[in-house]
Amino acid sequence: MNRMFKAGVIGATGYTGLEVVRLIRAHPALRLVFATSESEAGRAAGGTDLRYVPAETAPLAEVDVVFSCLPSGESGLWAVRAAAAGLAAVDLSADLREPGTGAVYGLPELWRDEVRGARLIANPGCYPTGILVGLAPLLRAGLVDRGRSLIIDAASGVTGAGRNARRDLLFGEVAEDYRAYGVGNRHRHVPEIGVGLARLAGPAEFVFTPHLLPIRRGILETIYVPVPDGVNAAVLAAACRTAYAAEPFVAVLDELPAVRDTVGRNVVALGFADVAGQSQRLVLLVAAFDNLLKGAAGQAIQNANLMLGLPEQEGLPQ
Amino acid sequence: MNRMFKAGVIGATGYTGLEVVRLIRAHPALRLVFATSESEAGRAAGGTDLRYVPAETAPLAEVDVVFSCLPSGESGLWAVRAAAAGLAAVDLSADLREPGTGAVYGLPELWRDEVRGARLIANPGCYPTGILVGLAPLLRAGLVDRGRSLIIDAASGVTGAGRNARRDLLFGEVAEDYRAYGVGNRHRHVPEIGVGLARLAGPAEFVFTPHLLPIRRGILETIYVPVPDGVNAAVLAAACRTAYAAEPFVAVLDELPAVRDTVGRNVVALGFADVAGQSQRLVLLVAAFDNLLKGAAGQAIQNANLMLGLPEQEGLPQ
Amino acid sequence: MNRMFKAGVIGATGYTGLEVVRLIRAHPALRLVFATSESEAGRAAGGTDLRYVPAETAPLAEVDVVFSCLPSGESGLWAVRAAAAGLAAVDLSADLREPGTGAVYGLPELWRDEVRGARLIANPGCYPTGILVGLAPLLRAGLVDRGRSLIIDAASGVTGAGRNARRDLLFGEVAEDYRAYGVGNRHRHVPEIGVGLARLAGPAEFVFTPHLLPIRRGILETIYVPVPDGVNAAVLAAACRTAYAAEPFVAVLDELPAVRDTVGRNVVALGFADVAGQSQRLVLLVAAFDNLLKGAAGQAIQNANLMLGLPEQEGLPQ
Amino acid sequence: MNRMFKAGVIGATGYTGLEVVRLIRAHPALRLVFATSESEAGRAAGGTDLRYVPAETAPLAEVDVVFSCLPSGESGLWAVRAAAAGLAAVDLSADLREPGTGAVYGLPELWRDEVRGARLIANPGCYPTGILVGLAPLLRAGLVDRGRSLIIDAASGVTGAGRNARRDLLFGEVAEDYRAYGVGNRHRHVPEIGVGLARLAGPAEFVFTPHLLPIRRGILETIYVPVPDGVNAAVLAAACRTAYAAEPFVAVLDELPAVRDTVGRNVVALGFADVAGQSQRLVLLVAAFDNLLKGAAGQAIQNANLMLGLPEQEGLPQ
Repeated sequence: MNRMFKAGVIGATGYTGLEVVRLIRAHPALRLVFATSESEAGRAAGGTDLRYVPAETAPLAEVDVVFSCLPSGESGLWAVRAAAAGLAAVDLSADLREPGTGAVYGLPELWRDEVRGARLIANPGCYPTGILVGLAPLLRAGLVDRGRSLIIDAASGVTGAGRNARRDLLFGEVAEDYRAYGVGNRHRHVPEIGVGLARLAGPAEFVFTPHLLPIRRGILETIYVPVPDGVNAAVLAAACRTAYAAEPFVAVLDELPAVRDTVGRNVVALGFADVAGQSQRLVLLVAAFDNLLKGAAGQAIQNANLMLGLPEQEGLPQ
Repeated sequence: MNRMFKAGVIGATGYTGLEVVRLIRAHPALRLVFATSESEAGRAAGGTDLRYVPAETAPLAEVDVVFSCLPSGESGLWAVRAAAAGLAAVDLSADLREPGTGAVYGLPELWRDEVRGARLIANPGCYPTGILVGLAPLLRAGLVDRGRSLIIDAASGVTGAGRNARRDLLFGEVAEDYRAYGVGNRHRHVPEIGVGLARLAGPAEFVFTPHLLPIRRGILETIYVPVPDGVNAAVLAAACRTAYAAEPFVAVLDELPAVRDTVGRNVVALGFADVAGQSQRLVLLVAAFDNLLKGAAGQAIQNANLMLGLPEQEGLPQ
Repeated sequence: MNRMFKAGVIGATGYTGLEVVRLIRAHPALRLVFATSESEAGRAAGGTDLRYVPAETAPLAEVDVVFSCLPSGESGLWAVRAAAAGLAAVDLSADLREPGTGAVYGLPELWRDEVRGARLIANPGCYPTGILVGLAPLLRAGLVDRGRSLIIDAASGVTGAGRNARRDLLFGEVAEDYRAYGVGNRHRHVPEIGVGLARLAGPAEFVFTPHLLPIRRGILETIYVPVPDGVNAAVLAAACRTAYAAEPFVAVLDELPAVRDTVGRNVVALGFADVAGQSQRLVLLVAAFDNLLKGAAGQAIQNANLMLGLPEQEGLPQ
Repeated sequence: MNRMFKAGVIGATGYTGLEVVRLIRAHPALRLVFATSESEAGRAAGGTDLRYVPAETAPLAEVDVVFSCLPSGESGLWAVRAAAAGLAAVDLSADLREPGTGAVYGLPELWRDEVRGARLIANPGCYPTGILVGLAPLLRAGLVDRGRSLIIDAASGVTGAGRNARRDLLFGEVAEDYRAYGVGNRHRHVPEIGVGLARLAGPAEFVFTPHLLPIRRGILETIYVPVPDGVNAAVLAAACRTAYAAEPFVAVLDELPAVRDTVGRNVVALGFADVAGQSQRLVLLVAAFDNLLKGAAGQAIQNANLMLGLPEQEGLPQ
């Protein structure tokens, strides 16, 4: 594995950008060539010997792979431009996640072959990653009662909301608080979840309710899965264990996962539990993962590894 | 309002006991006469001019009302003993919450008349308080589809778990974490919720999933309410507004409540939201409250006020 | 105490403004008549039946007392204007704290008589309040070695930095962090501390090093006091106990105070400890208090009580 | 670097033990052979394919290096036993840190040659590590005024206090609090600091005041360094830069370091600032580091690398 690839990061001072830079620095086959920032242009990029440059002056021609980490609305264009120049490009925003953008939706555990052949990747949203990884084996195996809605109650640490200065994200507002937001299927990840579920086994109804947690990083998704008679937690867990037996970045646990066990790791942890006393059976599925790793920067590196022909696990903490 | 009542607190150094003491000190018609603690006997009771005494030496004969705040298994006996001695007694543990204990279940907004005439009150559990207050008007008005389960996804700050030294409640374990516990309807509040719902409008199926929040105090309950065709968030909100129009300690908001807006107040805040795209209609109900006030000590004072013939709001922050 | 005074708050949606509003609402002799906010004009002022109005439209002529809680640079003018109109005015910003502004420095425990006769009060800064209250009896009694510097190592919760949207105050930045800022006597409170110390017993050298704590509210000041031979912690504690024997809002403890014991109370708690093995004697003085109460809004109400001829403790949590 | 060494961890379920296990797993030249725990014996050791065994049954004969991470009082004996059996042994407790125990004090940046030849290492305490690394170049170069005391005001995250169930370390007690402890030079690290300073340049007087921070990991030490005339922050920084030019694990910054920039890294970050207006000159020195890495487990691996003849940086995050 002597081949080294040169990498650039567009938008390197947000939370996902900082994490992509950190992972590139620790990656044995990637070398960081540039990192862009408008607001911090000229300042040293922490932990590197580079200085931030404005995106417009980034030497795209000198790199093999580009990670675009700008806010949605700005980010996708940079990834498209890089792919058009023949580079491998991963867009970490929501810009290219809809079908018809020409990008491949980069969730390797579900659609690895498409990722391998891609030049332009739409890196999945944080919430959808856990939901789709958790439910895919169940939907594909027909273990979900399609006549009832999936209830997805989710909670995320604040880094999922970005690093822009917003009053509602101040420490003084978030600490000692907990609240729902974007409820009623109005969160911007809802279409992405809908498209993903439909790709797995046809359209599925679901309710998605995110909450803001007073923690820095980590997502927990508590999913109430309607199941047919005869299906229970053990059946669902077995289906996931079979589906993910060879996957390094999915862990099916004997107990329910907690956020902290996954922080710092590029892993989605899954657990199942039966619920007593229900005429209409359902099973609890809990998915936990680090929103900045498997939910963003880690998955981006995983996608880049596949596109570049590197071992998928290279440079990723398990 | 010149009449002063003398109060004693059994088990005054846990989180609920400390909060009861704090409320009694600020209460214009209550005077603290004793506060018990085995581990801190002889030490000054913070903010008072009393010293903690062992429970066995507490001068029950000198007080009008006793609050028993010991752990479940120890607490109920003290309340029973106090009531037998003719005092007003409020037990804050789970010991007397089941039917058949001789205690009145003290949720004034639902069953005020029983509280008024009682000598022995079982103070409701924290989680059940929000669930029952939130759902009562809906169930009583027939606005819930009884053929489907209520999904109750809840999250509580750590003071709800008590003040005993447990590794899993250390700051080093709880900070930056979030996890489910007691899932599958195995939490000790499940029977209490079931009995309460049944009293309102007959048995109802529900799933209750609590989570541990890295905050000190506060509970948020996100409840997925199955509703018949034609019923929406506005209908449910209107039903609650009507039912609670005269209640000082229930707030029906135009938006969803957040934990922090209720901390320090003896209030349950309720909000409703519609959910788009569901064949089987449901409405989101969110209840937020301070687990140590309306979920424990505040409600205990409210019950005591009623038993003693005091104004129900006396000494309680709104 | 039947007399009611009408109060207005200029700048009511920052952390100090919100706290002043909260205290006025709970105050038996004050009634809130207006609360201003440019950004939230027209919206309901939480917990009141008022709506925020722009400062320019605030009916100054209808109130007896005005609290100005805008950022420094804007706040002082409003207080001056109110005082000129014959109202009692308290400015909570730094605008009027320097000598020569015509305002009385409102630290009642040290200069109560001046407060009583004032129309225009400069409410002290949070850090200076604890420092001056803690050191005053020691300096006045000649118990400090003036040949050496006072070392003041301080830490504050984030609400001390205001509620403006700043990246460095985001939850994602502050949580799990701790850092010094404004070091080298460059913090904006340094001149105020210097003037205050000089008023007590002539100029004194000091080093002031503030740090940002990942908590919402509370300040701890750890002060290394150089003392002459023969002076120890007991001597300093005795001096403070004597000086503050009649003060309701200063507590001299037998142990060192912690932040949390003071949150929610309008109190400065003080404690002293000897330090072993020093050729040049020094004593540790620790001051703890709630930056939003005794460090801001609570002290403002205390000053207003004095100006209006009300009992000093009226409406203040002890 | 093909040679692999086998490692064992005694006391692997406390915070330092967990961190040592994590570092061994990521270390290219170490392989974990056993991890002991009495309370969790038989359970899977997280992230490994091992199960915890009781310490008494640990196969010492099968490993090359042992890390002893039990509480002080129990830990040292295991390290002594391992060293006596010819293994490399690192004791992370305070048991062997005093002179006369036969162990080498393992602070490589100051006394590397001794570490290289050692069999038995006393791994330094967390607080002393930053203090000694920060002050060593200043003391050795005669840049400190020995006639005045060093004032060391320090703050640590809770993992520094261990993982035992203690009420005062509960989330409900620590969150939203900040307090001093072990003041007056009574903390158990005081003798270790005194011995370390004396070894550098003869006995030095100091005052050490630790505080408990509501964060999981990280230490900040704000040190007031008395200096002779003509010495300022730039001079001290230059001395440190020269002394540590070749050190991978010490960073001398142009600004003051913050805790969070060091978390997850085996680094002590140092910064200096002048203080205006002092007749007796002093300079502010701030040291920040991760108490579990450079303050414990990282330094232990660094020591083991040296003893085993491995590159000192092997397996350590910079």
